[in-house]
Amino acid sequence: MDYKVDFEDVKFTLFDFLNVGSLTELPPFAEQSADLYQSILEEGAKFAKKEIGSLNESGDRIGAKVVDGHVVMPAGFKEAFKKFGENGFMSTDLKPEYGGMGLPNTLGVAIFEFFMGANASFALVQMLTRGAANNIQTFGTEEQKQTYLHKMNSGEWCGTMCLTEPQAGSAVGDLTTSATPNADGSYSIQGTKIFITSGNHDMASNIIHLVLARVKGDAPGTKGISLFIVPNRRINADGSLGQDNDVKLTSIEHKMGIKASPTCVLQFGDKNACQGFLIGKQAEGMKHMFTLMNEARLECGQQGVAIGATAYEHALQYAKDRTQGGNTPIINFPDVRRMLMTMKAYVESLRTLIIEAAMMADIGKHHADAHKREEAEAFLSLLTPVCKAFTSDMGFRVTELAIQIYGGYGFTADYPAEQYMRDVKIASLYEGTNGIQAMDLIGRKFLMNQGKTMGHYLETIVSHLNKAAAAAEIKPLADVVKAALGRFQEGAKTVANRAASDKSASGYLATPFLRAFGDLVCASLMVRRAAKARELLQANPTADRARFLNGKIEAAKFYVEQILPEMDLNLARIKSSDVSALADVF
Amino acid sequence: MDYKVDFEDVKFTLFDFLNVGSLTELPPFAEQSADLYQSILEEGAKFAKKEIGSLNESGDRIGAKVVDGHVVMPAGFKEAFKKFGENGFMSTDLKPEYGGMGLPNTLGVAIFEFFMGANASFALVQMLTRGAANNIQTFGTEEQKQTYLHKMNSGEWCGTMCLTEPQAGSAVGDLTTSATPNADGSYSIQGTKIFITSGNHDMASNIIHLVLARVKGDAPGTKGISLFIVPNRRINADGSLGQDNDVKLTSIEHKMGIKASPTCVLQFGDKNACQGFLIGKQAEGMKHMFTLMNEARLECGQQGVAIGATAYEHALQYAKDRTQGGNTPIINFPDVRRMLMTMKAYVESLRTLIIEAAMMADIGKHHADAHKREEAEAFLSLLTPVCKAFTSDMGFRVTELAIQIYGGYGFTADYPAEQYMRDVKIASLYEGTNGIQAMDLIGRKFLMNQGKTMGHYLETIVSHLNKAAAAAEIKPLADVVKAALGRFQEGAKTVANRAASDKSASGYLATPFLRAFGDLVCASLMVRRAAKARELLQANPTADRARFLNGKIEAAKFYVEQILPEMDLNLARIKSSDVSALADVF
Repeated sequence: MDYKVDFEDVKFTLFDFLNVGSLTELPPFAEQSADLYQSILEEGAKFAKKEIGSLNESGDRIGAKVVDGHVVMPAGFKEAFKKFGENGFMSTDLKPEYGGMGLPNTLGVAIFEFFMGANASFALVQMLTRGAANNIQTFGTEEQKQTYLHKMNSGEWCGTMCLTEPQAGSAVGDLTTSATPNADGSYSIQGTKIFITSGNHDMASNIIHLVLARVKGDAPGTKGISLFIVPNRRINADGSLGQDNDVKLTSIEHKMGIKASPTCVLQFGDKNACQGFLIGKQAEGMKHMFTLMNEARLECGQQGVAIGATAYEHALQYAKDRTQGGNTPIINFPDVRRMLMTMKAYVESLRTLIIEAAMMADIGKHHADAHKREEAEAFLSLLTPVCKAFTSDMGFRVTELAIQIYGGYGFTADYPAEQYMRDVKIASLYEGTNGIQAMDLIGRKFLMNQGKTMGHYLETIVSHLNKAAAAAEIKPLADVVKAALGRFQEGAKTVANRAASDKSASGYLATPFLRAFGDLVCASLMVRRAAKARELLQANPTADRARFLNGKIEAAKFYVEQILPEMDLNLARIKSSDVSALADVF
Repeated sequence: MDYKVDFEDVKFTLFDFLNVGSLTELPPFAEQSADLYQSILEEGAKFAKKEIGSLNESGDRIGAKVVDGHVVMPAGFKEAFKKFGENGFMSTDLKPEYGGMGLPNTLGVAIFEFFMGANASFALVQMLTRGAANNIQTFGTEEQKQTYLHKMNSGEWCGTMCLTEPQAGSAVGDLTTSATPNADGSYSIQGTKIFITSGNHDMASNIIHLVLARVKGDAPGTKGISLFIVPNRRINADGSLGQDNDVKLTSIEHKMGIKASPTCVLQFGDKNACQGFLIGKQAEGMKHMFTLMNEARLECGQQGVAIGATAYEHALQYAKDRTQGGNTPIINFPDVRRMLMTMKAYVESLRTLIIEAAMMADIGKHHADAHKREEAEAFLSLLTPVCKAFTSDMGFRVTELAIQIYGGYGFTADYPAEQYMRDVKIASLYEGTNGIQAMDLIGRKFLMNQGKTMGHYLETIVSHLNKAAAAAEIKPLADVVKAALGRFQEGAKTVANRAASDKSASGYLATPFLRAFGDLVCASLMVRRAAKARELLQANPTADRARFLNGKIEAAKFYVEQILPEMDLNLARIKSSDVSALADVF
């Protein structure tokens, strides 16, 4: 099962539509160029196909295994990971002074599509390591940075995020892992963490855990939580590896998908010999972790795009090759085309959503204009739960359609669709379930903000749509989306009014609200993409290129006419006074 | 992972709401009673839980295996199957004179929920055997009936349906398996069949294959196809087992789910020694097979109900037990309740849909009044694709929500949700993909019939709703559904008009049309159920029973207010003039 991706659409999205080349106007990227970005993406896609896509199926079949208390990865993973690090893909967007490539985060997220699409289990090792490294880069002391970052950025060491405990899932504040200060400034860590992605494996000589724990005596709940660096093996003063740090692998989960990703239960300090080092400020661990988690949420969304995208490409090829009823390829059947177009429209819109959000992260950090920075950060914060939840749910839906295109074969391991569906499902569960994302959007991002950021963001959509409407062919589409936006605003008002008088309303309406917003945003992106395609068609492109560009316009029409009505479905749910699910009938 | 089912709802659906006891008014069931039906259902549920539900997880983990050219079932299956046959569950609705229980088909379908919900792989063996036996009972000669039925109805022998070939999936007419007449009246069968459920296993001493093949010289396409009985081992004149009949197991599929169900590739007549016996008339095989397939489609739908129902019950229990954020059970969170109510509303409406359709099958066969028979048959024919496709797709959606309720645990094999999702997916693929069902509904059942049956069926819905609206509390719900029905009729007109001028329209609109119809029908059933619950509440039931009955009313409100708007989503798709997916852009 080769990894397949429509690289032309990735290029269109990044360079033609979002103009990621403009990121070189930000000070840290001044020496870079769009050409550089494109060549790195090409290398990434090539590496993904050749080195890690080839391990996707076997990784699933073999799975990660525990042997003598340690995880053994499926054949080929260790070697591929070494090459991966050597190629510089571990930390494309971290600082060069610590061994990163120094590219914009946007590029890191964009290239991540290829790794995640080619082999989700493999890509997770990089994702967590890069996340942990970024946390150390952001909140660590210079000594910590020097100690950890070069080796994490080269892939010699890996990293994890350790939040969840058996009794503390969505409610992280309930954690009981403790940190007791030692005389030397370090802490003794004790506790059990579960669902630790890549918590133990044989691809790196050390694993650097970022662990949430409570310093003895600190406040209960999220307020008293601190963040610690806990290496799997201790590190000597000269940087060499020292003794075992009492982080014990208890077991790994048996899962529906991402079977080559070891999801670990880790016991810290079983022998009271687990040393941790505070990172950032005491009792500000949740704040530090959230930085990392917000990025991870974008990457979760990208997982939905990535796996959805390769599932779509495989299904498309199958639909062209498979004949039924004489020699008719099944792609000729309108019902099959409807499924394919649904997949295409989701993949293209969701890809754009994620990359535009990643650009906001770069602009939010690096733009010279403080107002632009603030705006980008506010928009990113608003969009993060949508990027995570809407994209993972719709990515799942794309894989479900892929299976349908294959018919009975889609249920078999002879084709990749079923693995894609199993692998992508996790994205709607980890990094905060999609229900939690919906509560974040409606509560923290909308109601607590009095809808200001949302209102501002909707204004920018209108302004974009007005520009797109300049082309006569695009205007009808832009008009439909503008009208939909008006209906969404009404729905948002309903949400605010209901929430003001009923404290259960925000939870009850959270998921419909997120879904409605997601569809509106994606429809607007599709119309804007169509306008760009229209513009590029003026330049008399080759027949192939014209077909490609027309594909953007048709996909936009499909989104607006066939998918956007789901926004109204969700608005109907919001407008209904129904609260039957709250009744005492379960 | 125990099998869980809301037996009270099954009873409410069958006895309170659908009054299956009325089937005893049909001549063949005159000696039976509602009490008998209930006690058989109770026994079935008990057997399902105790004997086969206990093998569901291990069956999935071990899977069916090929050893020395034959399938070995997971531990315990063979023994459980023997008990299953001894308990008379193989052919509850086949004729007593051939060893069946002689119950209405409705009871067979109802009890099948328990078997399928408890262990899908196990239940498929019964489903196929009963289907093959029913075909022999319906189209076979008396000699054939005597030869095969007693042993199939006792579970000593099993059965299969052999349609699909590598190049002939949805297009069965493309098959190449041949039948050459022999001097003794038998035929030599040659060809390869794929996707043969329970095509080979160790649970029975013989397997009776029903094979579609073309007699040499007969017409190409579906018209020239005949149906043959092909035993795995030949049967001597005295009924004892004879020599091997040259039906070779080539391989079994590796699948995402129903892993304990051997999905076989069978090679017939490799050594030119495969003997088959014509069943029914030559070249009428497709017609005979369709009888069996239509029943199998109801049972596929029941698979969606059955697995969705147990997934719901498990998720509900988990939501009550699992606490987060202090000691709050997660069922207290409104977003979780929304998911649970969505699952409940689907399970209850879909269960009703399937059982009502099964009653139509009994009425269509056995009612004294020819007009009633015709009407029931016409309605059943209209509803069959909906029962198959809508129910399997929504059943899948229920399992997806179950996983979400469990959060990260839902992705692990520690809880049953992930297996349910993997197991139920097949129902949208086999017995004709759900796309094929949608084409059947819009083409054969709606357009070719000039919408007559549909119109007639909608009239009966209105009349039911009018009756339900007699209760003041139900009237608002009934009114919403009646208004929705009016919009559906408009949508159906649009479909007819578009199909009249554009031959691709029926394929393009097929899936939205089926989904819209499915939601309308289910919403109407929920309102009618609510009216019945309202009525039963008048009798001052116990507090528990009142809570149960109120649950029916709340679930109806939820369906009408929160799910039925999906009908309008699909009508919007139909009303849109968009045909972007037909553009040449793939």
